[in-house]
Amino acid sequence: MTVRIAVAGASGYAGGELLRLLLAHPDIEIGALTANSSAGDKLLKHQPHLLPLADRQLQDTTVETLKGHDVVFLALPHGHSAELAEQLGDDTVVIDCGADHRLTSADDWTRWYGGEHAGSWPYGLPELPGQRDRLVGARRVAVPGCYPTVSSLALAPAVGLIEDEVVIVAVSGTSGAGKSLKPNLLGSEVMGSASAYGVGGAHRHTPEITQNLSAAAGRPIKVSFTPVLAPMSRGILATCTATLKPAALNNAVREAYEKAYANEPFVHVLPEGFWPTTNAVLGSNAVQMQVTVDEDLGRLVVVAAVDNLAKGTAGAAVQCMNLALGLPETTGLSTVGVAP
Amino acid sequence: MTVRIAVAGASGYAGGELLRLLLAHPDIEIGALTANSSAGDKLLKHQPHLLPLADRQLQDTTVETLKGHDVVFLALPHGHSAELAEQLGDDTVVIDCGADHRLTSADDWTRWYGGEHAGSWPYGLPELPGQRDRLVGARRVAVPGCYPTVSSLALAPAVGLIEDEVVIVAVSGTSGAGKSLKPNLLGSEVMGSASAYGVGGAHRHTPEITQNLSAAAGRPIKVSFTPVLAPMSRGILATCTATLKPAALNNAVREAYEKAYANEPFVHVLPEGFWPTTNAVLGSNAVQMQVTVDEDLGRLVVVAAVDNLAKGTAGAAVQCMNLALGLPETTGLSTVGVAP
Amino acid sequence: MTVRIAVAGASGYAGGELLRLLLAHPDIEIGALTANSSAGDKLLKHQPHLLPLADRQLQDTTVETLKGHDVVFLALPHGHSAELAEQLGDDTVVIDCGADHRLTSADDWTRWYGGEHAGSWPYGLPELPGQRDRLVGARRVAVPGCYPTVSSLALAPAVGLIEDEVVIVAVSGTSGAGKSLKPNLLGSEVMGSASAYGVGGAHRHTPEITQNLSAAAGRPIKVSFTPVLAPMSRGILATCTATLKPAALNNAVREAYEKAYANEPFVHVLPEGFWPTTNAVLGSNAVQMQVTVDEDLGRLVVVAAVDNLAKGTAGAAVQCMNLALGLPETTGLSTVGVAP
Amino acid sequence: MTVRIAVAGASGYAGGELLRLLLAHPDIEIGALTANSSAGDKLLKHQPHLLPLADRQLQDTTVETLKGHDVVFLALPHGHSAELAEQLGDDTVVIDCGADHRLTSADDWTRWYGGEHAGSWPYGLPELPGQRDRLVGARRVAVPGCYPTVSSLALAPAVGLIEDEVVIVAVSGTSGAGKSLKPNLLGSEVMGSASAYGVGGAHRHTPEITQNLSAAAGRPIKVSFTPVLAPMSRGILATCTATLKPAALNNAVREAYEKAYANEPFVHVLPEGFWPTTNAVLGSNAVQMQVTVDEDLGRLVVVAAVDNLAKGTAGAAVQCMNLALGLPETTGLSTVGVAP
Repeated sequence: MTVRIAVAGASGYAGGELLRLLLAHPDIEIGALTANSSAGDKLLKHQPHLLPLADRQLQDTTVETLKGHDVVFLALPHGHSAELAEQLGDDTVVIDCGADHRLTSADDWTRWYGGEHAGSWPYGLPELPGQRDRLVGARRVAVPGCYPTVSSLALAPAVGLIEDEVVIVAVSGTSGAGKSLKPNLLGSEVMGSASAYGVGGAHRHTPEITQNLSAAAGRPIKVSFTPVLAPMSRGILATCTATLKPAALNNAVREAYEKAYANEPFVHVLPEGFWPTTNAVLGSNAVQMQVTVDEDLGRLVVVAAVDNLAKGTAGAAVQCMNLALGLPETTGLSTVGVAP
Repeated sequence: MTVRIAVAGASGYAGGELLRLLLAHPDIEIGALTANSSAGDKLLKHQPHLLPLADRQLQDTTVETLKGHDVVFLALPHGHSAELAEQLGDDTVVIDCGADHRLTSADDWTRWYGGEHAGSWPYGLPELPGQRDRLVGARRVAVPGCYPTVSSLALAPAVGLIEDEVVIVAVSGTSGAGKSLKPNLLGSEVMGSASAYGVGGAHRHTPEITQNLSAAAGRPIKVSFTPVLAPMSRGILATCTATLKPAALNNAVREAYEKAYANEPFVHVLPEGFWPTTNAVLGSNAVQMQVTVDEDLGRLVVVAAVDNLAKGTAGAAVQCMNLALGLPETTGLSTVGVAP
Repeated sequence: MTVRIAVAGASGYAGGELLRLLLAHPDIEIGALTANSSAGDKLLKHQPHLLPLADRQLQDTTVETLKGHDVVFLALPHGHSAELAEQLGDDTVVIDCGADHRLTSADDWTRWYGGEHAGSWPYGLPELPGQRDRLVGARRVAVPGCYPTVSSLALAPAVGLIEDEVVIVAVSGTSGAGKSLKPNLLGSEVMGSASAYGVGGAHRHTPEITQNLSAAAGRPIKVSFTPVLAPMSRGILATCTATLKPAALNNAVREAYEKAYANEPFVHVLPEGFWPTTNAVLGSNAVQMQVTVDEDLGRLVVVAAVDNLAKGTAGAAVQCMNLALGLPETTGLSTVGVAP
Repeated sequence: MTVRIAVAGASGYAGGELLRLLLAHPDIEIGALTANSSAGDKLLKHQPHLLPLADRQLQDTTVETLKGHDVVFLALPHGHSAELAEQLGDDTVVIDCGADHRLTSADDWTRWYGGEHAGSWPYGLPELPGQRDRLVGARRVAVPGCYPTVSSLALAPAVGLIEDEVVIVAVSGTSGAGKSLKPNLLGSEVMGSASAYGVGGAHRHTPEITQNLSAAAGRPIKVSFTPVLAPMSRGILATCTATLKPAALNNAVREAYEKAYANEPFVHVLPEGFWPTTNAVLGSNAVQMQVTVDEDLGRLVVVAAVDNLAKGTAGAAVQCMNLALGLPETTGLSTVGVAP
């Protein structure tokens, strides 16, 4: 089976990572690569690590360029995918790495992103309860945000054991911000420095985490989420904590995690005594996590690591494509990181 | 006034930072420099950045070497300061950068460090309520841990406004771990990676933060503390959060912080819209912080930055020496960071 | 065809990279993994990025453990491979990532490494003139050093055009030094800092580069080589320069490089205007290079990038295994880097 | 004596470093701070590490704003200083951190920068033969480029001992490129990566190094210069090499360096066995260097470290101000680095 794919937004970090993974996928033929201001450039200029595609020319991001592929990956700023998807029709599977179709609540969309809600698509985190089935054979997939991926996986198995409020502080590499030319993303500013942003519930991934955990819990979960930028290109390490219900037994916690992920190929609860590091998942589709209980406080603490560009974005997109097309879910993906 | 000082543990990071600051102090004459396994070496070998002291020879850490100085700074592993201090007598001011005399509870000491409690000394965080007076003229000072410094300052002004449990996730550079030759501290492991350690209430700074906040609150405060190692040499960025009491008005929060630190030379509550970064305090004695309220959750979020080696250790030590000796508190110290 | 392999030295960086690449190789079955002081540990403890092998137990490095495999990779300190190889016999292909059999001159060996020369094996840099043929079907391969790989490839095409002395300054990540617990390799020392070592012709890779370039030139080439440690885990960027012979025409230079590497799958001379970066080759088996002439000086300048652990060590080892076994040379290897 | 100064270009890296140093200078009163597009902003927005000046407002860069100060520091793009200086008149000492008045040859200026040469000013590298006298009492100073500072100091003592061509490869942090919003300067691109630029004699600092070394030698010296960007914010490590004349005795080399810098407060030839690192000079005005001879090749190798923003730019500017005003040359400057 050969699947012909296109990538819209191939000059950016998410687009580059999609291509890196798709080059290693046995069933893929890489078709059109599009960009916005970089259209006309050779890909080498923007993705010098993708040597097999170095001479490919970036085209304009239009329906004409994208149509006729089996799968179109969208790695575009939010607000662009709904119209493109409609015009591409249902013959084409559309995997959207942007935010447009992640939130199910139109009110949430309007509050956090502004403008009109484009509707929700099957949510591309198959490891959450009930999600995998919606992805098999899907023609549209909303790939989750990077922070929601790691945070939701870190806390979903515990929602029955904890009180209603969780606190998440997630340390992230800078590639999550894309290639935006902002002063605070310059190497000179980033190296040697840590900084928080979107503090106090201001980050747009907050309602997405809230949506996921509330759905898993079957009741509203409140989420305090603070992202912290650290001097590394890739990776998120999320520290996730919540008060355990009085009745929750300590050994029930580990059991819940081991049970939840026993058959998941990409989510690994580490053996006791081991703690995740982001470089162990660099470039891989794995999530590594460890879970413990602070017994003085009766508090659950989960630490989870993910590569924001791989399982956090492009790896999830490929995983969802596999599900949508009926391919084995792990095809072309790996749990092996590039370290040190 | 010329103060003759000695530094025990001059080959390590805390010792080096002490000497860096003391070289810029107008009233200091640098006397004996001691080490353990490095005794006999020229200082250049261990502190190549301290050129004015390059030819100084490290001596053994003994009472004989240290006595006769006005001030002795101890930058030693815990367990060594009590006996040295006793033998030095009250003629010598002893400033201990180690943990031995920070905790007031003997039970806490035994639980967290093991062995017998050596007693507590005036605690070197003058910005906490009631502490400055205890430091003026003191002959013994226990310099706080780096995490407790930034965490306690970040939350102390709010203790009257919050519920009894706080959650702190603090991202730290690697110098906090000292020059220990451990595999996980190798550059190849650290660069590009974030990792948590001491998770679940296991870090020894937890009881120290608890002690400080409980003292400030006049009631027990429970502390969930998770340290995260990030790829940078220096700096701590602490994200500190707690549920506000129902009656706490939002503007009361900022007011409490501005009032608490209005006259503090080293603690800066940033204007609204600005968030701290660790490189803005690198090498300086300043703490920069910002405070906000997550109104959806009724939750306080404070983010604070400190240089773990400067205000987090050696800068605090110099500040306390100034207080102990009756010098102006800011002598030889600066709020100017080295950035970018 | 299934090839059963063993890795001696599986707990180190070279061993980990070998396993990372071999896990992606379609014809490989991973057999014994051995270590020295870490024997008995689960692999997860030392290579947390290699999840599929997490539960494998490290065994002692003995002939008994290693024999019976089709291929044995040695990632050991120098001095250990000759005896092991002899005991394993010719049924086993031995690929030595160490230095023992790289130098052809016994005098050079004794001068640079001390002790008796163990003899030379086919040299695992197939892109050098005449080397590939010696590797096809070989039972023993000496994998080149990381600096010699990039330096030799950067200069070999030009040896007919340049005078007899070359100057190489190569900036390297820290993983080249392995997991040695040395103070200067600690993250706190490495981050934010650059430093040279082995200056003045003192680095052991100097005679190996000299050997390669002299062989390619058919006359003695003198090599000034200075390695510089930079704050990154992986990657070497080598700046290589030499005076052009008076008769050398500028366009002859580019022509020589393009001709030399036209059919090489792993060596890429970039189009004019593009310069290599180490992150574009991170994790890949590619060498990217650019060549120019300083016309004011009549001087050739070549800049080349390689991943020291991949094409610089483990990738070359896999490439040589493929040649030795008669597999397609590129099997399991990639020119796609992991960036950003 | 109180000297009132202004800084034009106070929002950039050089401007920020000037202010950091001037805040520690005992004789300085800081007057107008100007910027271009950032005029009107509080300084805190651009220099959050300069807390004592946080509330200062950036003004437009005009003669009206700058006049009336004893000293005006210019940290502007090239092409702006000549007219400003003329209008400020000789009552004001003008210290130009830009390139406009460094080159003595109008032809060189036109070739490398384009446009008309604005003439040369006393060159602010007092450690070069004959330069200090020209700086004492000067009303105009051209501060050297960062690469020329370290390269010239590394080779000047040897010009009598070497042949006529030198090779310099200098590894630099990213702050040398300023706050330019270029994709290749983004943290995600810089971290974990090394890259060369301006290769083949294309960097504008080449004629400046050539000018300095030729003046020191009294004969033309040819310079092969390659800058390499490394993942660090500050610091340059220059590896400088040249063939020794046949008659040059090895011990003459060290002697030449020790003699040249015996009385220089900021240039330190390290004892044998020690090699410079950039973090040992971070934030300091020191240059640390080591010199050796590759005896196989008869080649001199010098490695030198400098902070590009401090001694490489702003520190030199303050040093020159001191000389111009008749203050002790070292006032407000330090040889103590901020490490680790």
